[in-house]
Amino acid sequence: MSGGETELVKYFAAKGKLSRSKFPIGIGDDMAQIKLPKGGSVLITTDMLLDGVHFDTKKTSLEQIGYKSMAASLSDCAAMATIPLAAVVSVGLPRNFGSQKLKRLHKGILVAMKKYNCPLVGGDMTSWTKPLAISVSMLSVPGKTKPVKRSTAKAGDMICVTGTLGGSLAGKHLVFEPRIKEALAIAEAGANSMMDISDGLSTDLNHICRLSKKGAIVYADKIPVSKNSKILNNALNDGEDFELLFTMPQKKFKRLKKQWRFKTKITEIGKITSGNKVKIEINKKIRVLLPGGYDHLKENSKS
Amino acid sequence: MSGGETELVKYFAAKGKLSRSKFPIGIGDDMAQIKLPKGGSVLITTDMLLDGVHFDTKKTSLEQIGYKSMAASLSDCAAMATIPLAAVVSVGLPRNFGSQKLKRLHKGILVAMKKYNCPLVGGDMTSWTKPLAISVSMLSVPGKTKPVKRSTAKAGDMICVTGTLGGSLAGKHLVFEPRIKEALAIAEAGANSMMDISDGLSTDLNHICRLSKKGAIVYADKIPVSKNSKILNNALNDGEDFELLFTMPQKKFKRLKKQWRFKTKITEIGKITSGNKVKIEINKKIRVLLPGGYDHLKENSKS
Repeated sequence: MSGGETELVKYFAAKGKLSRSKFPIGIGDDMAQIKLPKGGSVLITTDMLLDGVHFDTKKTSLEQIGYKSMAASLSDCAAMATIPLAAVVSVGLPRNFGSQKLKRLHKGILVAMKKYNCPLVGGDMTSWTKPLAISVSMLSVPGKTKPVKRSTAKAGDMICVTGTLGGSLAGKHLVFEPRIKEALAIAEAGANSMMDISDGLSTDLNHICRLSKKGAIVYADKIPVSKNSKILNNALNDGEDFELLFTMPQKKFKRLKKQWRFKTKITEIGKITSGNKVKIEINKKIRVLLPGGYDHLKENSKS
Repeated sequence: MSGGETELVKYFAAKGKLSRSKFPIGIGDDMAQIKLPKGGSVLITTDMLLDGVHFDTKKTSLEQIGYKSMAASLSDCAAMATIPLAAVVSVGLPRNFGSQKLKRLHKGILVAMKKYNCPLVGGDMTSWTKPLAISVSMLSVPGKTKPVKRSTAKAGDMICVTGTLGGSLAGKHLVFEPRIKEALAIAEAGANSMMDISDGLSTDLNHICRLSKKGAIVYADKIPVSKNSKILNNALNDGEDFELLFTMPQKKFKRLKKQWRFKTKITEIGKITSGNKVKIEINKKIRVLLPGGYDHLKENSKS
């Protein structure tokens, strides 16, 4: 999400003001939460995946494209620490796409659906003369905790991530595993804020800080860089990592680490501060970490 | 929905078999119904609207395109006799679409949202080098009755429609009013089956009959043809009428007509039969009414 997009999201949120009692979480988080008239609530997310942007039909199998489409929304369910319930998929199909190709796309959707227990309950298909467009909308319900938002990081929280960062362009963006179970455990351990890394760590940490009205300091040498990338810049800025970025008090994080039973590792990489800037310490120097990269013009002394 | 699409929908439904207790209404109706783990249920629909297919950005204002995108899903909520709850919209934007154009699209969405009390709670936007693609997913909840399905028409039911048919190409498809309130009243009066007319009366009545394992006889001279069209063929076959097609016992329909307080008229146009063919009486001759038009090759004597 670019700066212009952030402004637009604010505009949409202001224009279509939501009742907080009916919609505890609205526009601007990974999912919106909707209270039901007769009690309980559901969450919803939507994503549009486009040929040439999120996948390339010339290089990627339709099964993988189908899987990725579902997995991106499942990752949103994880980002809120919620349990996937059901999905709908609408597609714009290139002319002569044909039912065999559609069945291959569906096969990939089925893989994700079965693995994460999130049935496909409906859809819509239209042909046009343009490339493949896929939109997935997914419903989830809260787990044992309230959904974990982006806007509730606290000063003093550890900043933590799951897995390793920067491997998406090496192919991870097609085969990643949404961190549903991990997210539920993290929320139960007391996370204050969480999101999934879809725009890159530098951008997404800035989202959390902006929405929480906080600052952050991240230590470059603590960032778990993917073996497939090995380059810090990729770990900071590559989109579609689909790992979790979360913040929680240090004591709770220590307890969580002791109890941790998942293969995916969790790593603390920095701390939420009471300021309003996101900073990074690289080679003992502190710089401002802007969305999309650290800014060489704004070098700061350690403070 | 063409014959090939009907086959595909069957294939998808068979491959991703849904638990009937968790998903009372699955793939193949206007919306899917999802029971929630803690009680209650929600319904969901998704639609993809594409430039050059459902609208033409060269001829139609972005406000109208935004309105239509929401109204098409609202019409699905009506088709099931349910109450709209919230919507999410994802868009694929042509490069250089810009925030002003996006705000105009949003303005049309807001009009529908406010008129039908269905807030936009989230979205997703991506730029690409191709034309505008819009996907709307909408949630609803049941009204006083269970959602009304396509598959539950009974032999002897009157076949009825709201409004007039065949005006969509004259512009109605951009400005139509989803029949939410009318649908709730029709359901409370005891409709056995219902859907909205999105593929044309001939096609959609065939859907109801196929899914209900019933036949039908429709009387051409009873079909309320739109003033904008005046041509029976348009009333039978034009898509995007977005009127309601419903069936109910004759006594209940008579009672409904007496109580009817809406501007939109309701008209009985035929009867559900115990057969398996959809037929139409035109000029005192009975013909088979196939999806997309009546079949001149299959002329039948009155029987």
